[in-house]
Amino acid sequence: MQKYVFSFKEADYKNKKLFGGKGASLIQMTKLGLRVPPGFIITTEACKKFYEPKRSEISELEGILLKNPPPEVRDEAIKKLHSVIDSLDLPSEIWDQVVSYMKELEMETGKRFGDRDNPLLVSVRSGAAVSMPGMMDTVLNLGLNDETVKGLAKQTGNEWFAYDAYRRFLQMFGKIVLSIDEKLFSAAWEEIKKKYGVKDDPDVPLEGLREAVERFKDIIKRERGGFPQDPWEQLKLAVKAVFRSWMSPRAIFYRIIEKITPDIADCTAVNVVTMVFGNVGWDSGTGVVFSRDVATGENRLYGEFLPVAQGEDVVAGIRTPMDIEEFRKRFPHLYDELYNGVKLLEKVNKDVQDVEFTVERGRLYFLQSRNAKMTALARIKTAVDMAKEGIITREEALLYVSPEHVLQLLYPRIDPKAKAQPVAQGLPASPGAVSGQVVFHPDDAVRWAAQGRRVILVRVETKPDDVHGFYSAVGVLTSRGGMTSHAAVVARAIGKPAVVGAEAIEIHEEEKYFKVGSHVVREGDWITIDGHTGGVYIGVVPTIEAELIPELEELLRWADEFRRLGVRANADLPEDAAIARKFGAHGIGLLRIERMFRKPERLELLRKIILAETPEERRPHLERLYKMLKADFKEVFKIMDGLPVIVRLIDPPLHEFLPKPEEVLEQIYQKKMRGEDTAELEKLYRRIKALQEANPMLGHRGVRVGVTHPDFYYYLNRAILEAAAELKKEGLSPVVEIMIPQVSEVREIVYVKDKAIMPALRDVEESFGVKLNVKIGTMVETVRACLTIDEIARHVDFISFGTNDLTQAVFSFSRDDAENKFIPQYLDLKIIDANPFETIDVKGVGKLVEQTAATAKEANPSIEVGVCGEHGGDPRSIHFFHKTKVDYVSASPFRVPLARLAAAQAAVLNRQNKHYQKPI
Amino acid sequence: MQKYVFSFKEADYKNKKLFGGKGASLIQMTKLGLRVPPGFIITTEACKKFYEPKRSEISELEGILLKNPPPEVRDEAIKKLHSVIDSLDLPSEIWDQVVSYMKELEMETGKRFGDRDNPLLVSVRSGAAVSMPGMMDTVLNLGLNDETVKGLAKQTGNEWFAYDAYRRFLQMFGKIVLSIDEKLFSAAWEEIKKKYGVKDDPDVPLEGLREAVERFKDIIKRERGGFPQDPWEQLKLAVKAVFRSWMSPRAIFYRIIEKITPDIADCTAVNVVTMVFGNVGWDSGTGVVFSRDVATGENRLYGEFLPVAQGEDVVAGIRTPMDIEEFRKRFPHLYDELYNGVKLLEKVNKDVQDVEFTVERGRLYFLQSRNAKMTALARIKTAVDMAKEGIITREEALLYVSPEHVLQLLYPRIDPKAKAQPVAQGLPASPGAVSGQVVFHPDDAVRWAAQGRRVILVRVETKPDDVHGFYSAVGVLTSRGGMTSHAAVVARAIGKPAVVGAEAIEIHEEEKYFKVGSHVVREGDWITIDGHTGGVYIGVVPTIEAELIPELEELLRWADEFRRLGVRANADLPEDAAIARKFGAHGIGLLRIERMFRKPERLELLRKIILAETPEERRPHLERLYKMLKADFKEVFKIMDGLPVIVRLIDPPLHEFLPKPEEVLEQIYQKKMRGEDTAELEKLYRRIKALQEANPMLGHRGVRVGVTHPDFYYYLNRAILEAAAELKKEGLSPVVEIMIPQVSEVREIVYVKDKAIMPALRDVEESFGVKLNVKIGTMVETVRACLTIDEIARHVDFISFGTNDLTQAVFSFSRDDAENKFIPQYLDLKIIDANPFETIDVKGVGKLVEQTAATAKEANPSIEVGVCGEHGGDPRSIHFFHKTKVDYVSASPFRVPLARLAAAQAAVLNRQNKHYQKPI
Repeated sequence: MQKYVFSFKEADYKNKKLFGGKGASLIQMTKLGLRVPPGFIITTEACKKFYEPKRSEISELEGILLKNPPPEVRDEAIKKLHSVIDSLDLPSEIWDQVVSYMKELEMETGKRFGDRDNPLLVSVRSGAAVSMPGMMDTVLNLGLNDETVKGLAKQTGNEWFAYDAYRRFLQMFGKIVLSIDEKLFSAAWEEIKKKYGVKDDPDVPLEGLREAVERFKDIIKRERGGFPQDPWEQLKLAVKAVFRSWMSPRAIFYRIIEKITPDIADCTAVNVVTMVFGNVGWDSGTGVVFSRDVATGENRLYGEFLPVAQGEDVVAGIRTPMDIEEFRKRFPHLYDELYNGVKLLEKVNKDVQDVEFTVERGRLYFLQSRNAKMTALARIKTAVDMAKEGIITREEALLYVSPEHVLQLLYPRIDPKAKAQPVAQGLPASPGAVSGQVVFHPDDAVRWAAQGRRVILVRVETKPDDVHGFYSAVGVLTSRGGMTSHAAVVARAIGKPAVVGAEAIEIHEEEKYFKVGSHVVREGDWITIDGHTGGVYIGVVPTIEAELIPELEELLRWADEFRRLGVRANADLPEDAAIARKFGAHGIGLLRIERMFRKPERLELLRKIILAETPEERRPHLERLYKMLKADFKEVFKIMDGLPVIVRLIDPPLHEFLPKPEEVLEQIYQKKMRGEDTAELEKLYRRIKALQEANPMLGHRGVRVGVTHPDFYYYLNRAILEAAAELKKEGLSPVVEIMIPQVSEVREIVYVKDKAIMPALRDVEESFGVKLNVKIGTMVETVRACLTIDEIARHVDFISFGTNDLTQAVFSFSRDDAENKFIPQYLDLKIIDANPFETIDVKGVGKLVEQTAATAKEANPSIEVGVCGEHGGDPRSIHFFHKTKVDYVSASPFRVPLARLAAAQAAVLNRQNKHYQKPI
Repeated sequence: MQKYVFSFKEADYKNKKLFGGKGASLIQMTKLGLRVPPGFIITTEACKKFYEPKRSEISELEGILLKNPPPEVRDEAIKKLHSVIDSLDLPSEIWDQVVSYMKELEMETGKRFGDRDNPLLVSVRSGAAVSMPGMMDTVLNLGLNDETVKGLAKQTGNEWFAYDAYRRFLQMFGKIVLSIDEKLFSAAWEEIKKKYGVKDDPDVPLEGLREAVERFKDIIKRERGGFPQDPWEQLKLAVKAVFRSWMSPRAIFYRIIEKITPDIADCTAVNVVTMVFGNVGWDSGTGVVFSRDVATGENRLYGEFLPVAQGEDVVAGIRTPMDIEEFRKRFPHLYDELYNGVKLLEKVNKDVQDVEFTVERGRLYFLQSRNAKMTALARIKTAVDMAKEGIITREEALLYVSPEHVLQLLYPRIDPKAKAQPVAQGLPASPGAVSGQVVFHPDDAVRWAAQGRRVILVRVETKPDDVHGFYSAVGVLTSRGGMTSHAAVVARAIGKPAVVGAEAIEIHEEEKYFKVGSHVVREGDWITIDGHTGGVYIGVVPTIEAELIPELEELLRWADEFRRLGVRANADLPEDAAIARKFGAHGIGLLRIERMFRKPERLELLRKIILAETPEERRPHLERLYKMLKADFKEVFKIMDGLPVIVRLIDPPLHEFLPKPEEVLEQIYQKKMRGEDTAELEKLYRRIKALQEANPMLGHRGVRVGVTHPDFYYYLNRAILEAAAELKKEGLSPVVEIMIPQVSEVREIVYVKDKAIMPALRDVEESFGVKLNVKIGTMVETVRACLTIDEIARHVDFISFGTNDLTQAVFSFSRDDAENKFIPQYLDLKIIDANPFETIDVKGVGKLVEQTAATAKEANPSIEVGVCGEHGGDPRSIHFFHKTKVDYVSASPFRVPLARLAAAQAAVLNRQNKHYQKPI
């Protein structure tokens, strides 16, 4: 007969798939000799056995839910799913084993299940291979009934405590196991508190508790026909409820979002654990502790202890707990025992631990241990520290930090120069400063975000039900809860800035506004939150990039030793270049001249250049413009001295620098309405209309402008090359690479080299009397450039994939249009798995990049191959590029550290023959 | 020593490359025993030898001219080229051979070169391997001087004639050999005519001719230091002049336009031929004759004879010649001799011949024979006739007609229903009716056409200098000249509609207008010409397509036997389908639903559908619309009964069916200025703006609309399928294929099949109680569809390459923008060889099509592969597709015959292992 139940002592803690995460940790702690309340695990195999008789029906209904159907279809499917699952019975072979392990538990604890004098009480907890906040969590105090409550009173010598436990159990059992609306219980409880004129739970007298017990039993009777007094019946129902929770819509949704496929977790286990009580007196309590500071990474215990409390009181953030330091002072011996246990777990698990514990009358019990969720800062610092302490290797340290963590650490902060004053102060729950429009409901967050808006989700506190809103929001703000509250944990886990427990804020979720001081903030108003400091600001406050911390610098130095891919930066202005160099970019992979035109006087000149009708008319403006640009180039080259700088010749269609025709039309009509002369404006309007294009993305741009206006390209090259020449005369070593954009035919390259680049080079070298070593290359961003790369490669020193435009061309998607109009729906419908503008489309664009890079190297073995689209800063894409003939990626300056790490991870994982996986 | 000179009797007529076309024909006629004036050829090798000493300098200057430089650069290069060539001498080894062949000629004719009693006179003619109207043509009467003119008078007994010949020779020699401005001679000649009070040349008395001779010699003396009296010196200079003409800018330009590369012709030969005189009396004359009617193809001699005239008098169209039928009546024996000779030449050369002849005192001389230029009609008729007469094979007949000829035959005619009255009547020189804006100068034609305008070039008469204007114009109109005039010959050769000799039109080229009757037509005004009838119309006159002539039908039946590729039509409306079926399409390869929306009531409904905010609001409009569409589908399916019809689900972005935002904005402001309420319009404006896209070509279109609005696609399918079901019930056999556009990911296909197509099919089959056999396929027009075709092919019954969009995606060129903005310049600069939207880009798009078609067939061997872009109607592209796994091409209805022929030619040439070449 198959074994479905295992005691903590006999099982193998490495088999998480069978025992679930929680179970495995209980087994492990037991094995390590830590004090764990005795108990056993009903395996995930049992759960699957339970579902077996209706497997096909259930799969079909699950399939419907997975397709994200309209509400009416969804509700119908959920109803059917419930009724199918309700018809299932716990197989007797499982139940028989449960009963026999319960008997063993009785032996071990010396208590008896259902005994009126010395009753055994247990907790029943779900636990899948991965943590799933969407599932049922825990039923405590199972085994209580009208008789055993008396025994509990005797055991503890505290009748009030026993009836309080019974009341809680009834409510929990009613809600979780019997699915009764919790509001019925809480309403009754509020009435009782009112009746006895008390505000807080502990002030309710024993009489009130007894009354609550009766009223709760009445509710259960009314709703479900009666409360099972038989503890065995309670246990059976609870086990079934845990199994059932695996198929709750919330759990299914969570699995979709988190991509938890059957190979990762295919059912839940059930943990049955002897109850210990943290709420039997002031020498008791319950706590959560981390083996290191999860906010800063500092190597000290970090956590909270709530005296006279049961586990869920801490997590729910109902009372404010004591800091672990205070616990140390009060219970030094317990602290030492806790410390040693936690550190042992950290060492064995090679990760910072998040440990739940309970103290019952001065005895410490370990209840759960798992890898801690941390801020990015802590994650990075602990990775480096643990590697130095010998707990993990450097390779492990590199895999331990996710690129997103690095990014998070470099998330913007509030600019101190803005001297903005926060209107409220909360806890800095998840780092990063961000501005967004306020919404008060997770569904609104989803809807607004789908319309392309940046929203901040504002809630009194958050629940697992709210998680979909987190994914859509750019940040989260709550007025209640601590650093380990739901909102804080989830925000850190998915890397969204969050401020929690900002108590000064009075939130009216239903009416969709909040008040803080004299401010009233309504849905749609802009606010800014700073997850570094906990500050909340009205309106949009300017932010700045952060600095590298020393541990990150160290980690990145390790990364540099492992990675094959080079990392450069996309930087257009001197200030970007400075960040890029600081963040360790080995050059600039893309400098877009067009951003240099943002200054008004330059834009003015550029417009004159564009509107000029002959080269003669154009020349004086070009002469002035190129001198202005030269100054910028000099600064950039100086900052990047000794490192290559790829300057891309102007790429966008020229009409993008002109006013929009509709703007001019409006001006014309407004002038007309004022009776003013509009001849000049009308001329401008006609000129702009003539230059306008149906599809500017595929229009007269890039090298096409260079071919039709070689004089323009000539002067751009003059600006670049004179800057280099002047620096060279000053003794510096500028390394200039000139990149031609939008090439689709090799003859375009030959032509602009011949007509613009080489003449400029000759003229500059002649007039400055220096020899410049300039590389000339092309951006590969049209499909035809890929298909004819064998010809192109022979005419250039380097190529760089412009994967943004290439993605547009391969999909025939205009990014501007697609991301607003249909990509969200495509993602919803699973027509595409990821936004191809964020993560490289391996099957299409990736295939082309891979083949093109290989062919280019064959045709010209000394050619340098880069990637300068946004994919150059995307970890998943970097992993792909690692496996191709690409030599380096180029990312936006503050993504450079992320790219350095991701490239190293790709190298490490690839050496281990492992595919990319999102690190923890 | 190398042999540079050959007599007509000793050379090989097949070596055109060495002897030139004219020379080869003289050799051939001599060999065939036709009477040819004795003469010899200086070979093209001699020409190359002549250039050898300055070859590199000349190549460099030629290179500059080839790049189409700005005028100042061009003029400078031409000047240098002249001075370099002028410095060249005729190598003595060549000259020695010429002298010895002249001696032979003296022996043969019994005359002596430079003899004062019985002088030998010769003509000197250029002649490259291909005919080049851009080059120097002929110097007649060479050998005349102050002494020999007396001998000529003696020989002919006609002093007037001798001095007239001398006068002409001086003028011709002065102009062609010495490059003196011809106006100097003609001005002097006009003065003499005035002095003697005569209007026509023949009325000038002998005294006047003597005076002309003296004045012409004075002009030459003044301009070039004197006229060479020595005939040998004349001959040497003339030979050099012929060689020099190879490098004249006109000749270089002509070689560029006609793509005459060195492997086709690398220098010119020189023909030296004994003079015969057509102008010595009424038993003399000169003529041009074609072996068949070059206008209609009728099998009868066709041509003109001008008595008392020398060759160039006919070509120049100065006097109106007599028809060849009249010649027959007057000179029946000469006619028979001519007829037999011409027909012999036709048989040997397997082509209709264009023969120049001269009658000197009743003796017939053949001067030149070449393949005739014909109207398309004649080309096709003679191809079929010659094949039936056994002169050529059917395969040869197929290659003999160019697809453009077929197209030309199907060119539009003036719609008789328009009852338009021509304002003038000219000769129908080149078929086709066309409307355009009038320009009077070839340079203007080029400039205007570059701006995208359709222009008709209007000239008194045309010269080789004007040819560049022909290429840019859509049609040509002259007021002077006959069917063999320059304008007529060139227009036919390049397939442009032309009306010549419309004498009622009074053209003022300098002042840029023409008068006809009471009309004054200025530059930029629209006219219509009809090359079928010779009619000239004011304004734009409606045109209609032509019918197939029986010979073309026969030729196409032969084509159908040879071709591998199927031919379908792109037809959207019942009237298109009717043409397609008539022209032999084997089905419809592309029916674009969107064209069915052009009717106002449908557009109105469609706009309501687009602006509806919910599916519920949309439904009633969809219900109405689909019933309207069904009627059209029924008609089309009925017309194509039994043949497949591929219906493409709607493709363009929906906002294309809405008014343009600027239009609405203008309306708003105009209402505002009138003080009217604009609330409704402003709402519409906002809605339109919200739907607007930055790059609609890459936007929310095609299958993307089907995915986001499956209800819309559902109703389109209902319309298609109900139409088929109803016809099936009526006993017809509709063959419906549904095509999904713009697919970039196989899951798009799966989704719309699942959500729209299959439900519509089920619903229709159920309600009509019929079983429909519907194929479902996809258009392959995104690059990603190509790259993932292995997946896609397994989900569809057919694919069809949308090469228009695919070309856009591969080049990242928007056709609308590129063809107006930079493609003309790209073609000029030789950055691309052909407009890729007209002829498939073999290296890029073609490569992708080839690979994709092959992969598709591997993944799904029963898949049908078509091409429905415009390239499906382009002969060069068809040749390419023949060599791929493409099963059929689909072309616009009136290109179907062309495609049938081109597909057959591809098969024939491919079997002969020959590459595509533009047929004659």
